[in-house]
Amino acid sequence: MKIEAEWMRGGTSKCWVFEAEHLQEAGTSLDMLLPRLFGSPDPRQIDGVGGATSTTSKAVILHRPAGGDVDVEFTFAQVGIEEAAVDWGSNCGNCSAVAGLYAIEKGWVTPSGDTTRIVTRNTNTGQVIVQRVATPAGALPLVLDAQMPGVPFPGHRVGLGFQDPAGKTTGALLPTGAATDTITAGGTRWTVSMVDAGAPVVIVRAEDLGLDPARYDSWRTGVELQLDTLDQVRRQAAVRMGLAPTTAEAARAIPKLAIAAAPTQADPGCDVNVMMLSMGRPHPALAITGSIALTLAARTPGTVLHTISGNTPGPALRLRTPAGVIETWSEERDGTLLVGVDRTARTIATTIIHLPEASGSAAAASLAGATL
Amino acid sequence: MKIEAEWMRGGTSKCWVFEAEHLQEAGTSLDMLLPRLFGSPDPRQIDGVGGATSTTSKAVILHRPAGGDVDVEFTFAQVGIEEAAVDWGSNCGNCSAVAGLYAIEKGWVTPSGDTTRIVTRNTNTGQVIVQRVATPAGALPLVLDAQMPGVPFPGHRVGLGFQDPAGKTTGALLPTGAATDTITAGGTRWTVSMVDAGAPVVIVRAEDLGLDPARYDSWRTGVELQLDTLDQVRRQAAVRMGLAPTTAEAARAIPKLAIAAAPTQADPGCDVNVMMLSMGRPHPALAITGSIALTLAARTPGTVLHTISGNTPGPALRLRTPAGVIETWSEERDGTLLVGVDRTARTIATTIIHLPEASGSAAAASLAGATL
Repeated sequence: MKIEAEWMRGGTSKCWVFEAEHLQEAGTSLDMLLPRLFGSPDPRQIDGVGGATSTTSKAVILHRPAGGDVDVEFTFAQVGIEEAAVDWGSNCGNCSAVAGLYAIEKGWVTPSGDTTRIVTRNTNTGQVIVQRVATPAGALPLVLDAQMPGVPFPGHRVGLGFQDPAGKTTGALLPTGAATDTITAGGTRWTVSMVDAGAPVVIVRAEDLGLDPARYDSWRTGVELQLDTLDQVRRQAAVRMGLAPTTAEAARAIPKLAIAAAPTQADPGCDVNVMMLSMGRPHPALAITGSIALTLAARTPGTVLHTISGNTPGPALRLRTPAGVIETWSEERDGTLLVGVDRTARTIATTIIHLPEASGSAAAASLAGATL
Repeated sequence: MKIEAEWMRGGTSKCWVFEAEHLQEAGTSLDMLLPRLFGSPDPRQIDGVGGATSTTSKAVILHRPAGGDVDVEFTFAQVGIEEAAVDWGSNCGNCSAVAGLYAIEKGWVTPSGDTTRIVTRNTNTGQVIVQRVATPAGALPLVLDAQMPGVPFPGHRVGLGFQDPAGKTTGALLPTGAATDTITAGGTRWTVSMVDAGAPVVIVRAEDLGLDPARYDSWRTGVELQLDTLDQVRRQAAVRMGLAPTTAEAARAIPKLAIAAAPTQADPGCDVNVMMLSMGRPHPALAITGSIALTLAARTPGTVLHTISGNTPGPALRLRTPAGVIETWSEERDGTLLVGVDRTARTIATTIIHLPEASGSAAAASLAGATL
């Protein structure tokens, strides 16, 4: 049994990209098939295509809808490493960037103009992402020249525009109805904004933590001393946003929490300094979904971020993160809003994966992940 | 530019397997080409096929000699991860196991009988390795069933027989001319055997370290307390074997040092307990080259290992290592000796790697590894 796949880099991830019908030919469920192809369960994934890290054990499954406005539907799969399991619960912003490029490379979409727009829809979240792939003079360039932080080699420029991202989880951009709210935690009254765009995020002001806005490089130390209090803020926000009935029941991953401050005059290279918490720890950069939420917050009068970034943000917003400045963009067209970031993507290899014949009880048990 | 490659598991390594002529078509040196294909320099190798660990950043380059007794010549390349460099200095026993299977899968060698023999030669070391690939009823089995420690899924059974491995580095199996010698270090007189087969190895007796042969699981602690003394023994052996002019100039990797003891009666599952030092630390298992040296030592009257393992070793030698028992085998045929171990191997994917177009100074600098 052999299965076609493209191995692609999307942003800072490596993704195995399948067409849905090729996987169907294997005649087994994706929850069993993908772990076996990746070599799971095995902390080294030594007998499969997985890379033994969370950013290299990812799959994207593509599908061409028969009609409608969507060119490509894609489903993201986070493939377990030590467990023969697949997590279908969320999308991966980095892997999203492979869908448009794949569509052009396979001839599903004909490039046109200096930028080709491909309308994609992520099935995990229902989010439509309009991808803008650089196609100078109407073709993919032979020489790649787009760079991005975290990737030492160039790729194709891919813009990911999240279409009308507000309220996808809670139904409203401002789930509490207010642009700014007050939360009391750790003996302090926190001025926060709770927004739902890309993902639910609660934004707190760096000054409420006693952080020095002028010394961004000192934030991490200050934040790590107040992680418990910040988690209390986050859990109260979960309840206020309708994501959990009680603070005790708030999920660990939702909402995310962002700390923000205005840049100092001595540092004019960005519009806002931010530090995001991810699973209770400072994030080394900024998840794409988080950057979407912050961008919409900056565009919304009355929010903490709108005050920080100034009253008239342009189409671009520059966010300073521990990994460097990340720029997002906004575009209004035909009554829809796109909020996005640019990534780079590249096809690393065109492959045919060999799936070992599963016959007999031992092999069947292997496929079910029972042989560790 | 696209380059064909098979991605294969050999033993506990993942190896990228190329035919020499396919790499030549790229028109650039392998020292530049391989790192770029693998995504180096980059600790994550995120833009290439490398797996960001030493056991997954390996290449094997195959070549079919025009005449003679050798079916396949192969060259092993350890591809740097954080450096855009290739180490050609040694062979990899695990990756060796892909050469015979590749030759059968590509039709270079026609399988015959229940075991097909493929004569391979490693060009890094000059070592001929006769590979015995299981081909029941004259064909590669469709259902894989050969297991090995460290790999949770089955593969093809591949025996690696090192042909006449004695003296490849120093010219003699016993470089000092004696089966046993005495070395004084750390105030102790050590009874050692120095052998050269597969790799140069000095074998010391566990009892000389004060280790309890009956408590193998206590060895590591005892060994780690005496690493300095053991390195003195190893450096003196380097001089005695003619590998270095002085102890100070002895290489860190050669000779290897093995600690050995007879198994206790309560533990009849092996012929000898061994612990190997690798780069000054206890090895978690046993390198294939080291197991070849120990097997020849056990076959040679008068050595420390011959005394331990008994006077009449059979064709199989069972070595207990921290990772479990490893079995080696010996075979004499037509005046040549094969000493070997069994591995498993499997083709994970048939691929075409995309090499980005290198034009302009930035791309040329990338290819030279200058852009980190």
